[in-house]
Amino acid sequence: MQFSSSLLENAVNEFSKLPGIGKKTALRLVLHLLKQDVGRVQMFSDAVTTLRQQIKYCQRCFNIADANTCSICASPLRKQRMICVVENIRDVIAIEATQQYSGTYHVLGGIISPLDGVGPDQLNIEALVHRLQQEQTEELIFALNPNIQGDTTIYYIQKKTQHLPVKVTTIARGIAFGGELEYADEMTLGRSISNRLPVERLVK
Amino acid sequence: MQFSSSLLENAVNEFSKLPGIGKKTALRLVLHLLKQDVGRVQMFSDAVTTLRQQIKYCQRCFNIADANTCSICASPLRKQRMICVVENIRDVIAIEATQQYSGTYHVLGGIISPLDGVGPDQLNIEALVHRLQQEQTEELIFALNPNIQGDTTIYYIQKKTQHLPVKVTTIARGIAFGGELEYADEMTLGRSISNRLPVERLVK
Repeated sequence: MQFSSSLLENAVNEFSKLPGIGKKTALRLVLHLLKQDVGRVQMFSDAVTTLRQQIKYCQRCFNIADANTCSICASPLRKQRMICVVENIRDVIAIEATQQYSGTYHVLGGIISPLDGVGPDQLNIEALVHRLQQEQTEELIFALNPNIQGDTTIYYIQKKTQHLPVKVTTIARGIAFGGELEYADEMTLGRSISNRLPVERLVK
Repeated sequence: MQFSSSLLENAVNEFSKLPGIGKKTALRLVLHLLKQDVGRVQMFSDAVTTLRQQIKYCQRCFNIADANTCSICASPLRKQRMICVVENIRDVIAIEATQQYSGTYHVLGGIISPLDGVGPDQLNIEALVHRLQQEQTEELIFALNPNIQGDTTIYYIQKKTQHLPVKVTTIARGIAFGGELEYADEMTLGRSISNRLPVERLVK
């Protein structure tokens, strides 16, 4: 793509470094910004810069926070003795969107995956073990993606924490709502049969 | 979507104002930027702010430029007596990508569309007429999208300039390369028959 302006080219190049944004989309976004007021565009770039410069991570759960403690860890309305272990911040937002969980989180910052060179030391696992030792946690809920890496991570953390008096659970696996048995993989279908629920749980 | 940080929320909101970017995509882009160095993110926002603050439009053809005259109008390698009329800057980039055109451009900044409240006065048409009167233009090529608005705009400009000794042409319309006759609309197919070309033009 050839540009008549190096400023335009520069901005398009910056945008096209973002994931999933190609040159054409980048150009569309940049030309959209060009049509906005100078003040609006300034607000856009300030939001990005300020976020990167001032963002903090909760010292307790490693969630994104404005202060040293995130709003969930600081809230008296949340069950502070319940910890939901998630891979990343997107998962926190996804679970919060369900409005079904009222405990706290622990963001691992990734998942154990030797093939990608990610071991336990690169994740916030030591901090989780320390947190379980310090706090009187009642329940540890694993909400990791159901795959080999997720299961490995659960297994590793459970080994590390099995001496502690904490109830350990994982989110239910089974056929998704709206899914079809016919197309479910054998492992999921098999597990959903062996972990079958009393019917009254469906309407709860 | 609920956020544990107002900085994060602010940045996601700014990104989701861009065309075609929803909240989920905005979050993905923002979390990507969060993982980058402070310097990299600063470069990103600087590119955007600088573009908006310092961008200029070529005083001759209204293309985006770094100076008062764009690189195409300033180039001795381009045929300065040939003007290609386009709707916007994206069209300039698309035509430049073909490497088939060596003249100059004139960016209208839109298309006559009474339904959208866009009349001739909001476009750079007066400037085009003035330019044709001042410069010894040999050919005016319309490269507008082939639809009612495009045809209306061509008709309007032609009326305004018919007293000038300029050859006026439009880009060819017909069946696109790779297209199928069967699925072409009647108007396109009809025109492509009445505007048929000698076969030797195909291999040129």
